[in-house]
Amino acid sequence: MENQKRGKQSFVLTKPPVITAWASVAGKKESEGPLSNTFDIKQNDSYFGQKTWEQAERKMQQLALGKLSEKSGVRSNEFGMVFSGDLLNQCIGSSFTLRNTGIPHVGLYGACSTMAESLMMASIAVGGGFSDKVVAMTSSHFASSERQYRFPLGYGGQRTPTAQWTVTGSGAALVCSSGYGPKITACTIGSVVDLGIKDANNMGPAMAPAALSTIRAHFNDLGLSPDDYDLIVTGDLGQLGKEALLALSQREGLGLGGKLTDCGTLVFDLMKQDVHSGGSGCGCSAITLCGYLLDKLRKGKLKKVLFCGTGALLSPVSTQQGLPIPGVCHAVSITGG
Amino acid sequence: MENQKRGKQSFVLTKPPVITAWASVAGKKESEGPLSNTFDIKQNDSYFGQKTWEQAERKMQQLALGKLSEKSGVRSNEFGMVFSGDLLNQCIGSSFTLRNTGIPHVGLYGACSTMAESLMMASIAVGGGFSDKVVAMTSSHFASSERQYRFPLGYGGQRTPTAQWTVTGSGAALVCSSGYGPKITACTIGSVVDLGIKDANNMGPAMAPAALSTIRAHFNDLGLSPDDYDLIVTGDLGQLGKEALLALSQREGLGLGGKLTDCGTLVFDLMKQDVHSGGSGCGCSAITLCGYLLDKLRKGKLKKVLFCGTGALLSPVSTQQGLPIPGVCHAVSITGG
Repeated sequence: MENQKRGKQSFVLTKPPVITAWASVAGKKESEGPLSNTFDIKQNDSYFGQKTWEQAERKMQQLALGKLSEKSGVRSNEFGMVFSGDLLNQCIGSSFTLRNTGIPHVGLYGACSTMAESLMMASIAVGGGFSDKVVAMTSSHFASSERQYRFPLGYGGQRTPTAQWTVTGSGAALVCSSGYGPKITACTIGSVVDLGIKDANNMGPAMAPAALSTIRAHFNDLGLSPDDYDLIVTGDLGQLGKEALLALSQREGLGLGGKLTDCGTLVFDLMKQDVHSGGSGCGCSAITLCGYLLDKLRKGKLKKVLFCGTGALLSPVSTQQGLPIPGVCHAVSITGG
Repeated sequence: MENQKRGKQSFVLTKPPVITAWASVAGKKESEGPLSNTFDIKQNDSYFGQKTWEQAERKMQQLALGKLSEKSGVRSNEFGMVFSGDLLNQCIGSSFTLRNTGIPHVGLYGACSTMAESLMMASIAVGGGFSDKVVAMTSSHFASSERQYRFPLGYGGQRTPTAQWTVTGSGAALVCSSGYGPKITACTIGSVVDLGIKDANNMGPAMAPAALSTIRAHFNDLGLSPDDYDLIVTGDLGQLGKEALLALSQREGLGLGGKLTDCGTLVFDLMKQDVHSGGSGCGCSAITLCGYLLDKLRKGKLKKVLFCGTGALLSPVSTQQGLPIPGVCHAVSITGG
């Protein structure tokens, strides 16, 4: 087998897998934001017709998978496998979506980095010839996340100015060995970075060092620079995390300035939508990628994008035990076509 | 890239990755069981010197990773990547183990199937040439699991006769593109199966249908039968789940009888150790594989083993919302050498 490993953390795809289709499902607030016209399915009911928000999250993934099947023309029993995960305890959004579908499933946990993580794993599975027509998918839900990580919504807790707003949405992408669409040409696997930040209401800066670590490794391992990309998209650092990443990268002489944007700042209008530091949650980078970004890549409006999923690897238990918030970031290099 | 996909759920490794080293860490009760002399590190203190059981679980993974490095002669900064996950909310056992190590990390969630899931993903990463010296690792802890999934131990709840005992332990295996040791020759990716069982104290029978589904797919996809294996090892159905799997397989005319065993029944003495239906938890199949089974494979006492990690994909939230317990099973075919 040909060696596709590059440097310490990266690999190239000598036969680049193709993202032939993508689908997104968005909640009410997201559908009122700047990316509204890029979503496939919009829903005003936060329950998505279900009894609980957790089941709404499962429903969103089902809708995304169904829409992906419809848009790609690949029936769900033809999907080779699904890589997915979510923020709910024990990833029940993902496992309940796939139960009794017969589709082979590998569950992931990468917090809000899951869209990039699942895309990276799909590219390994397809690029190595182990599977084909592989789905990368994730979701998050504002209400289920708030009650799991912070407070029940009914408690009416005040959000700090540094807080981000968990996106209610799900995104799915289909990765194939052939076909027409943007191609995955290289990936960089993140390592877990922790600089000791403990404020669970300020996760952007907690994740920024991981983003810098992975972006730096990507350039080093592959001999690239920001000039090789039209856009370097983190997701989801939010406004404060993006500023932290810019400050950290400048200190190292890595000029990301003109190229960097963040899904958390793209998905909402930060001034008008009262989301404080921006969007977050697995769904944030998922619906930004599986619509806005991939649409632009397919149309040639973007030629090369480094999609950097960032995740804060905390839990309420680790926070209560006084531990800091480790971050991780996985980067996927996508070329338009 | 050569097509290694076989059938609907399986793939072969045309250049089989080698498990060159493995390491296990076990708690007190496990160290009093029948596999005691196969564990590398045994510890009587359920806190492993830490302040909390969750941090004890992180400590176990650190010990397993350190011992793996020692046994393999591969320094930790030479590990290509680590696939790992655990049962703790948001997989904090795994992410806190890897923070600031610089080792690329992909987080998995497969409940108690994680040892097989991580081994399968490691075989894809190495077999496809995307990485090398890849670690597959997981852990579980009796006390952290009980308080997360059921009741705080201090509550003194009675365990039902069908309950299993979560293993306190961690196992890690090193998967390489070359070297000496048992080889991974094929894998079958599980799909999520749910027959509607809702009793969170009887998870073996909830997982048995998933085990049957994957074992059957393995034989169908690869044109094999139970006769091709010395041993088919599920982990962790426990005694009741094993009986359920035997009954289900007999009904389909699939004779597993002489070949089937289960890590949950191997790791404890069910009569003497008051563990009811047997061991469970990610650590159960991890310490049974990363010691007893791989030792026998290396020594040639077992020639070919189908290692089938089984996971119950429930959470306290899904149980409280009246939902059933979906199961998943991933199978890894390992040849001695």
